[in-house]
Amino acid sequence: MPPNANLHAYINGNIQPYGEAFLHISDLSIQRGYGVFDFFKVQNGRPVFLADYLKRFYESARLMELTVPLPESELTGIINELITINNLPLSGIKMILTGGYSDNGYDPTVPNLIIQQQPLQLPTPEMIAQGIKVITHEHVRELPSIKTINYTMGIRLINKIKQAAASDVLYQKNDVVSEFPRCNFFIVMQDNTIVTPPENVLLGVTRKNVLALAARKYKSEERTITIADIAQAKEAFLTSTTKRILPIVQVDDVVIGNGKPGAITQELLQDLIGLEKL
Amino acid sequence: MPPNANLHAYINGNIQPYGEAFLHISDLSIQRGYGVFDFFKVQNGRPVFLADYLKRFYESARLMELTVPLPESELTGIINELITINNLPLSGIKMILTGGYSDNGYDPTVPNLIIQQQPLQLPTPEMIAQGIKVITHEHVRELPSIKTINYTMGIRLINKIKQAAASDVLYQKNDVVSEFPRCNFFIVMQDNTIVTPPENVLLGVTRKNVLALAARKYKSEERTITIADIAQAKEAFLTSTTKRILPIVQVDDVVIGNGKPGAITQELLQDLIGLEKL
Repeated sequence: MPPNANLHAYINGNIQPYGEAFLHISDLSIQRGYGVFDFFKVQNGRPVFLADYLKRFYESARLMELTVPLPESELTGIINELITINNLPLSGIKMILTGGYSDNGYDPTVPNLIIQQQPLQLPTPEMIAQGIKVITHEHVRELPSIKTINYTMGIRLINKIKQAAASDVLYQKNDVVSEFPRCNFFIVMQDNTIVTPPENVLLGVTRKNVLALAARKYKSEERTITIADIAQAKEAFLTSTTKRILPIVQVDDVVIGNGKPGAITQELLQDLIGLEKL
Repeated sequence: MPPNANLHAYINGNIQPYGEAFLHISDLSIQRGYGVFDFFKVQNGRPVFLADYLKRFYESARLMELTVPLPESELTGIINELITINNLPLSGIKMILTGGYSDNGYDPTVPNLIIQQQPLQLPTPEMIAQGIKVITHEHVRELPSIKTINYTMGIRLINKIKQAAASDVLYQKNDVVSEFPRCNFFIVMQDNTIVTPPENVLLGVTRKNVLALAARKYKSEERTITIADIAQAKEAFLTSTTKRILPIVQVDDVVIGNGKPGAITQELLQDLIGLEKL
């Protein structure tokens, strides 16, 4: 049982102790890995960019032909109630919507809705100062634009990442890169243009914010990035809700720029932290 | 809650009422769709081809870096105990192994093992006499040789299948077909050669048996099948544990042969039913 049994979670209408939050094994997440989710940050007890995450959650549900059983206003009310009860100033809230309890273990029924809150660790200053090494793996996610619960490939690669003494894995197909299992990918080109892949990626909220922040000062583009482009890049970084912006200093055997986190990467991180406080 | 609350299921060492079989929401199947499973038939109270299914279950677990917590002999003992307790002469038994209760909702831990038994419906004589229509969809499963719980694509296509008044969906990529979400695909060529795709498919136990049965009387081959090959085929059928051999009379707009179940298909079905009784 996980350690945070004193926290509370929401399941299908009830806020209850996290340690007592169960689903019957006929749920389609257990039977068939069928569900969607979303995840946002709480800082100083306040959800960050909540509207964007809620919008994506409802959109993921729609695209998987699942119905969120509550309107956005009620969902927001429950989120605020959990934030008050759990009292975790820096945390992550995850909403999961599954295919529901299925008689035949295949056809979706009335979805089950879970909302859980857990403490969050942001990247340490050391990680940001050093940057990370990542590896690549040939793969494109099945339904990249939908935030499904399917992380089969990413989790299966955890040991491969560890064996390479790397921090994450960047998916590529025919030398065109797309995304990490849980993060988006950016490069800064030699002319300071900031680029992120346009397709076969989850449209991250942090990705969107970074593109907008970058456009204030630099040229920023969504366009195809190849392995060869990475070798020519000045800087590289990933973005995600929990990692914000994390510098990448090596991709497989290719050292990015001078092998140290880049100035524009660090500037954008400061801009993002500022935006989160607005 | 599903209707079969009077049945019993096994979870992590305990046989308990199915209606009381729960997993905590921190399980990686719920959080990340991470797990493997297998499924076999019980006929006249006896598991059919059990050794093949157990072998594949352990192999799927190994390929997903999960450890089945019991040796095959103990697992077989539990299966026999469930068969005795539930007393369902014609049924299906599903074994599910998940990534376990994960503190951080991503890293696998000690797997959770579920064994459940449910009544089974074989195809009706009418379905076999009429054959089925199927549609195609461009897709290749992520890890086709592993029986993961990820059915994201197949379930998402349920309504598309219904709208086409079809019974199932055949995956194809660049006009090369592979498999159905839960079944393998075969054609009988004009020269009576029986063919099934060699790659990007789950290696079905029924597929294996049908290939062996076919080889007794005909030429049988594992080789690439294109959409064009289907249009030229004499017969087509699918195979699975629950469906055995089911004739296919139409693929998208293409009518197979004379639009009726073929003689070789029906002959192989009788041979398979015979093999199951040995």
